[in-house]
Amino acid sequence: MPAGNLLDRIDDPSALRALDRSQLGQVAAELRAFVLDSVSRTGGHLSSNLGTVELAIALHFVFDTPRDRLVWDVGHQSYPHKILTGRRERMSSLRQFGGISGFPKRGESEYDSFGTAHSSTSISAALGMAVASRNKGENQGPGRRRHVAVIGDGALTAGMAFEAMNSAGVTPDIDLLVVLNDNDMSISPPVGALNRHLARLMSGQFYAKARDVGRAMLSRVPPVFELARRLEEHAKGMVVPAGTLFEEFGFNYVGPIDGHDFEALIPTLQNMRELRGPQFLHIVTRKGRGYKLAEADPVLYHGPGRFDPAEGIRKPAAPSRPTFTQVFGDWICDMAALDDRLVGITPAMREGSGLVEFERRFPQRYFDVGIAEQHAVTFAAGIACEGLKPVVAIYSTFLQRGYDQLIHDVALQNLPVMFALDRAGLVGADGATHAGMFDYAFLRCIPNMVVLAPSDENECRQMLYTAFMHEGPSAVRYPRGAGVGAEVQREFTAIPLGKAEFRRRGRKIAILAFGTMLAPALVAGEALDATVVNMRWVKPIDRALIAELAADHEAFVTVEEHVVMGGAGSAVAEAMAGDGIVLPLLQLGLSDRFIDHGEQSQLLRLEGLDADGIERSIRERFGALAAAPGPRLVAGGAGDRAA
Amino acid sequence: MPAGNLLDRIDDPSALRALDRSQLGQVAAELRAFVLDSVSRTGGHLSSNLGTVELAIALHFVFDTPRDRLVWDVGHQSYPHKILTGRRERMSSLRQFGGISGFPKRGESEYDSFGTAHSSTSISAALGMAVASRNKGENQGPGRRRHVAVIGDGALTAGMAFEAMNSAGVTPDIDLLVVLNDNDMSISPPVGALNRHLARLMSGQFYAKARDVGRAMLSRVPPVFELARRLEEHAKGMVVPAGTLFEEFGFNYVGPIDGHDFEALIPTLQNMRELRGPQFLHIVTRKGRGYKLAEADPVLYHGPGRFDPAEGIRKPAAPSRPTFTQVFGDWICDMAALDDRLVGITPAMREGSGLVEFERRFPQRYFDVGIAEQHAVTFAAGIACEGLKPVVAIYSTFLQRGYDQLIHDVALQNLPVMFALDRAGLVGADGATHAGMFDYAFLRCIPNMVVLAPSDENECRQMLYTAFMHEGPSAVRYPRGAGVGAEVQREFTAIPLGKAEFRRRGRKIAILAFGTMLAPALVAGEALDATVVNMRWVKPIDRALIAELAADHEAFVTVEEHVVMGGAGSAVAEAMAGDGIVLPLLQLGLSDRFIDHGEQSQLLRLEGLDADGIERSIRERFGALAAAPGPRLVAGGAGDRAA
Repeated sequence: MPAGNLLDRIDDPSALRALDRSQLGQVAAELRAFVLDSVSRTGGHLSSNLGTVELAIALHFVFDTPRDRLVWDVGHQSYPHKILTGRRERMSSLRQFGGISGFPKRGESEYDSFGTAHSSTSISAALGMAVASRNKGENQGPGRRRHVAVIGDGALTAGMAFEAMNSAGVTPDIDLLVVLNDNDMSISPPVGALNRHLARLMSGQFYAKARDVGRAMLSRVPPVFELARRLEEHAKGMVVPAGTLFEEFGFNYVGPIDGHDFEALIPTLQNMRELRGPQFLHIVTRKGRGYKLAEADPVLYHGPGRFDPAEGIRKPAAPSRPTFTQVFGDWICDMAALDDRLVGITPAMREGSGLVEFERRFPQRYFDVGIAEQHAVTFAAGIACEGLKPVVAIYSTFLQRGYDQLIHDVALQNLPVMFALDRAGLVGADGATHAGMFDYAFLRCIPNMVVLAPSDENECRQMLYTAFMHEGPSAVRYPRGAGVGAEVQREFTAIPLGKAEFRRRGRKIAILAFGTMLAPALVAGEALDATVVNMRWVKPIDRALIAELAADHEAFVTVEEHVVMGGAGSAVAEAMAGDGIVLPLLQLGLSDRFIDHGEQSQLLRLEGLDADGIERSIRERFGALAAAPGPRLVAGGAGDRAA
Repeated sequence: MPAGNLLDRIDDPSALRALDRSQLGQVAAELRAFVLDSVSRTGGHLSSNLGTVELAIALHFVFDTPRDRLVWDVGHQSYPHKILTGRRERMSSLRQFGGISGFPKRGESEYDSFGTAHSSTSISAALGMAVASRNKGENQGPGRRRHVAVIGDGALTAGMAFEAMNSAGVTPDIDLLVVLNDNDMSISPPVGALNRHLARLMSGQFYAKARDVGRAMLSRVPPVFELARRLEEHAKGMVVPAGTLFEEFGFNYVGPIDGHDFEALIPTLQNMRELRGPQFLHIVTRKGRGYKLAEADPVLYHGPGRFDPAEGIRKPAAPSRPTFTQVFGDWICDMAALDDRLVGITPAMREGSGLVEFERRFPQRYFDVGIAEQHAVTFAAGIACEGLKPVVAIYSTFLQRGYDQLIHDVALQNLPVMFALDRAGLVGADGATHAGMFDYAFLRCIPNMVVLAPSDENECRQMLYTAFMHEGPSAVRYPRGAGVGAEVQREFTAIPLGKAEFRRRGRKIAILAFGTMLAPALVAGEALDATVVNMRWVKPIDRALIAELAADHEAFVTVEEHVVMGGAGSAVAEAMAGDGIVLPLLQLGLSDRFIDHGEQSQLLRLEGLDADGIERSIRERFGALAAAPGPRLVAGGAGDRAA
């Protein structure tokens, strides 16, 4: 990779700090080229990282990392930070199995003060560190410890960021700097009043010099006129506020300044470093900065796969198989056309959740509430009270943010809110932070909920329809990526409540498969001559079928892409216990550990959840009950125990 | 009860609306007397309801309820509303089994537009309703539907309220009025920057006339000078802002006005009713208003039991048995004295969580972050990163609000944050919204977590110690109220990780009891001559002991105060399945439904979780294995099946 003269020598930030300030521009140029080259080879987040090149350099130049704590909110903008902190060479392993994470991770580097990925945690975490430093007496004297949170304007809309600011603003004797990296204005329609507030700040203050001598830390008026010009139009008719929202929260607000200009960044950070109490620096950056194609279409370059930087991303040919996300996106448009009551809600995941077309066709029925999962869920409950039928499109892992609202506002009131849970199970390159492997457990314990897990694309569509028609809270849970390629029937067919489906009649062993685990279970079932059932419903579980199977089988196996603890296999165990069924049970699922990034298929194989793994586990436990191993298995081993 | 001439005739708000405005003062006096008398007989929330007498009257007088929607945030201030909406007579059944709820409840009345209890949901819900009205075309014309959320200043600190305001402020064509009922200033130290902001608003604006003719709706300057005088001191040195935070969010802000003065309230509400878009009315009320004792000590009168209004609450004699909350309160003080690393965190539950003494003794190590569970958890994670040991004291039901943070920020990073989960299981008069009956399920599926459940007070203390010393995330889960009265040993003794404890050696049947279910299980075990084990750990579950029990028992029974689905009994089922143990299993726990208010002991009996219920259930399933019923049971029935 083309590192460059200066970057080549920066193996940790002390080498950066040894440079002259005048050399930082060259470091930035080399670092930006390195990021572009590196991401084009591995895939990963691009636009956000091209936007934080100068910020990462400036922070490590000004602050005494790792002694000073640096928390990158969300963390998909932390590649420049990683490259500057000893991981330049390892960038080639980014987001790959065994390689470095796409997010900050405490186990990976002492420079990663706090692991991030879900948004809006940084201020809380940095405040906690600042309070600990205070209480340990590390906030005194010239070498006192500083704490910096870098947060984007999108992440700022989540409630927990406000909770943290509300708390930080009145916490005495802390060293806390929040850097607002404001870059969304140019890429997507502003969501929420906060975004409008930021626009006002920008339009009103760019041309003015700092209005308060006590706060005047800018060495010169920042050269961001171009951005400001664009924003002026956006902010037309808005009133320039006398104070900012951040000042209302008790922060000393400075900004906005140009986040790509070292002449503004470095002295401002140096000055703010010396101040006590909660500090707030508002910088403006451009996503994709320095790579024309990404600047022009930062969404396309948000998280690309591999590409040729000279050519840019080629629009991929339509994939042969639709993803579950696309199945959902088609379904919600078709359903909305049929039923006026449907409204769609997303917490800032329009593209990821497949709602682009829905928004285009039904703008009045589409609600992007920003990164605000809690509000999204209760907002849906309010809508449901009035007879409309909300569909909350949300990643499984992000529903964890709205869990209390699901219980208290939706399920307890038995309101017909439907959750379309995307990215369930393992998610691949995003890793442990984004895995949706707890949802069966945390959903099925809640009264009134029904939970469906489609085994293929067509069943996904039909389950979405079934859940939508259900008169109560429901969740349909499907994985990232494509399925087996089942033909999707446009006609809607409801799936009977709590009814599983026989897929293979076999002998002795009954494999009860949940969701997309059906496909490998069928292969294993064939080899073992086992019965295979597509369970379809995690709740209510099909107790009648389980009792029926118990009558003519000698062992049960459950298979799910979810932790075993509390999962769908335990729903089967409960049904067995409840009906007095006493048979051996093997529960296959994810192990009780956080699973790092890697290819989904590879991770599933390592967890024993591919066809071979399932067959092997069953033979190990119930070899005597299974058919002899076929030619796919070599002789010997567990198979020998087969009758 | 002493209703009064006017109140007697108000069976629904239309009767209130038929009165002349000049009569509302008399209604308020009668209603206030009724509330005081009623709560003194039933127990319940008092201070908050005395504070909303005029507001409830004014809202029902001005708005066309139930057609117009009224959402009471938290809802413990909704008694006047209940009394005015046809539930006057039923107030005598408040919070009792089969009686009306202490919170708004959709199933109870068409006037309860949205069930509440957990705080800060009202703006999201009302916004959802407003959007639904808009999309259904019900927001047009003179009879258009209005939507009102009433929220306290405490509830406003929760992030989801901000998420909702951020969204509401930019949603076009909605009829939404947020009424901020500002009453905390006088009763507890302000928490957070928001509180300071409110103080500024009050000090700056009381003496000024409304500064904008377009917003001038006050018929006269409100007579709240007394409050203002007190606040002035508080706000000394603060700058009066030119705008308010709520205006930054896109709301039309009006206020503050005196929430006990109909001459201010009624015309302001009438005027605001006619405006479109998001409206924000800031009223100031006093908790306990009109009852001198409650005004003087609103915390004491926040949620009293029965008392004589003439005498006031007598300080109860020290109870013979300490509550689990007190055991925790003692423990954290003792532990903090021993270990400098301990810090205590509460999301606005100092009294309820037993932290009053801890705050007094260790003010620098005590953090009340406001109603901000998400922040509380990640703040603790940040503190843990720096080598201190945070204890988050939180009700089980409120941890649902910080679930993602527990997974993503604490457990994934394996940080030693300890959760002291109070009010686990059924909680009595507060009912379904506050029950902590899902925590085993949602906690034990998370890797790295350990979960303990004490069977008595001393074990609670020792488990708190054990969890605190554990080098990773932990939760100790204990119920509301007192335990069996076990003597608490001051000396700390760690409980070995994942080790259960034999409590009774019996025959054939092994009862595995979790937490305080041990006591009734022991009684049942005696009658049945069954083995009884105090499981102690929900995670890790004691697999070795389960295997040992399997060797010389014929059936297992699990008992827990938690839903069966995904609960501790399922952890036992998983252990059995994992170790190939094939024995009948009976899982006793709470049924799969939300359980309304009532006495804890009564509810547990109805759920079959008292000693008799446990014995009966076991005899029904495993009668042949049990000892013959003793004299406590009449002959016949299930007992006959005993050998």
